[in-house]
Amino acid sequence: MPAAPEHFGTRLTARVAARESQVVVGLDPDPARLWPGVEPAGPAAAQRDPRARAAAAVEAHCRAVLDAVADAVVAVKPQAACFERLGGPGHDALEAVCAHARDLGLLVLADVKRGDIGVTARAYAQAWLSATPTPHGDVPGLGADAITASPYLGEDSLVPMLDEGRPHGRGIVVLVRTSNPGAADLQDVQDPGGEPLWALAARLVDRLGSDAGDGGGLSDVGAVCGATRPEHLEALRGLMPRAPFLLPGVGAQGGRVADLGPAVAPGRAGALVTASRSLVDAHRDAAPGSDPAAAARAAAEALREQAWALGDGR
Amino acid sequence: MPAAPEHFGTRLTARVAARESQVVVGLDPDPARLWPGVEPAGPAAAQRDPRARAAAAVEAHCRAVLDAVADAVVAVKPQAACFERLGGPGHDALEAVCAHARDLGLLVLADVKRGDIGVTARAYAQAWLSATPTPHGDVPGLGADAITASPYLGEDSLVPMLDEGRPHGRGIVVLVRTSNPGAADLQDVQDPGGEPLWALAARLVDRLGSDAGDGGGLSDVGAVCGATRPEHLEALRGLMPRAPFLLPGVGAQGGRVADLGPAVAPGRAGALVTASRSLVDAHRDAAPGSDPAAAARAAAEALREQAWALGDGR
Repeated sequence: MPAAPEHFGTRLTARVAARESQVVVGLDPDPARLWPGVEPAGPAAAQRDPRARAAAAVEAHCRAVLDAVADAVVAVKPQAACFERLGGPGHDALEAVCAHARDLGLLVLADVKRGDIGVTARAYAQAWLSATPTPHGDVPGLGADAITASPYLGEDSLVPMLDEGRPHGRGIVVLVRTSNPGAADLQDVQDPGGEPLWALAARLVDRLGSDAGDGGGLSDVGAVCGATRPEHLEALRGLMPRAPFLLPGVGAQGGRVADLGPAVAPGRAGALVTASRSLVDAHRDAAPGSDPAAAARAAAEALREQAWALGDGR
Repeated sequence: MPAAPEHFGTRLTARVAARESQVVVGLDPDPARLWPGVEPAGPAAAQRDPRARAAAAVEAHCRAVLDAVADAVVAVKPQAACFERLGGPGHDALEAVCAHARDLGLLVLADVKRGDIGVTARAYAQAWLSATPTPHGDVPGLGADAITASPYLGEDSLVPMLDEGRPHGRGIVVLVRTSNPGAADLQDVQDPGGEPLWALAARLVDRLGSDAGDGGGLSDVGAVCGATRPEHLEALRGLMPRAPFLLPGVGAQGGRVADLGPAVAPGRAGALVTASRSLVDAHRDAAPGSDPAAAARAAAEALREQAWALGDGR
């Protein structure tokens, strides 16, 4: 790691500009629904342990997806659960997929949604953003550029992640208003002043974030804001003027890119549009026998163009 | 796994009665603060990879802790973050620690605090409570008896975990009112009717839980209720009459067992007192050179007696 790593918000802005894309490809591989023809040959295929075989297949699938969509995306968002369920080999597969993403020039936003008390929050940050000191030497983590984090335990559960990641130029992206129907159960509860819980989470994100110091850049604390409820986006942007928004829910869940205008106010990198199934499974909606890679590439490029057309917020 | 696994609440009640303990020992091993003298010999010590060495040392430490306190506790609560940060070898160490706990007759309550949208919540449950179907055969998960879960994403993020775990006799324990100072930031926010968010989470726990069918047993959806704010416990028990409470915060964080009376209303298994540092680090507060195992055993036994003295709620 370089001596003075660049600020996460600065890196994100530069990467979006260089790749001309705000698209984040989500990887949530199901061993029962991988792309046909990616099953690895060689030693991996010969293994009898279902866990090792499934992990090898998942890794090959994810590499193929990244190779297909890389030109149209700026980052990858691996879903930790899908690797975690394959144990140690799953962890190794995730490491390999993250390394491959970096080789392709992509940022890694690990979707882990962790949240815990202070000392444990720091341990999670060590796992994903930095390294764990041990008497035997430092154990490097996954090397993600940012992780998603849950705010339910409050500010003192988020600060340690930031304290751990910030010196390495890493960020966190806090769940504020998610895209699932159940999000309303707690996140939309209003306080006596009529302010929903998501607005309180948003204020927390704004307070914790810091930019690179020039006052004009993006913060290193982002927010997950579901694209399924665009009517909230303007209020969310007002509460978090500098935060990069990670916007799930476009496509399969019904969100529309055209409704995401308020998100780009601080520049294009402020509006990261994430899509998983709508890219990876694009061939399933195409003609029978369609090439998954070609279908994914076309879907990613179409999404890239739509998002880019939102402009740079000026 | 047996064809018709027993209900989680029933198993928990029986285990507490058989072991005459409500104490849950938390394991959050820091490679830089392990018990002296537990470093493994043999091949593990000869490894040059810091990750493998640290994982082997963590595993040896956890085994030693379990061996020391097993007679006084009913369950172990491994902290996922502390194993996750050691990668694949960390996962293997956690598997071994969980297997050792089972051999000692303990339940495993994995402290993972996961929470995500439906399909991902199911993947987490597969990782920890059940198994993942793959074309190469089922990949078994960690085999935990229950996992902790975050409610921030709402009901539809918890139901899939329960759907996945319940047929295997496994449960979930939802974060309701945690023990850290920051818990107040969001969990204590009051809705217009004056009801705090934690009460809404508690209602969700009560609604999702089901008992074994006889109407008198504990539910398979528990609640994390910090022991640091005993003034909430009566209200929490009123809202969740059948839920097993996992009560962190006794000892180092200032909570007192004597204040936990309302938690045992549905029986002793309704009040699981969890302690980590106050047991594992008990030798640090004792005379210099004290044996960590003896100090931990004594601390666990003292806590067991205190908690048992709360009675069975009748």
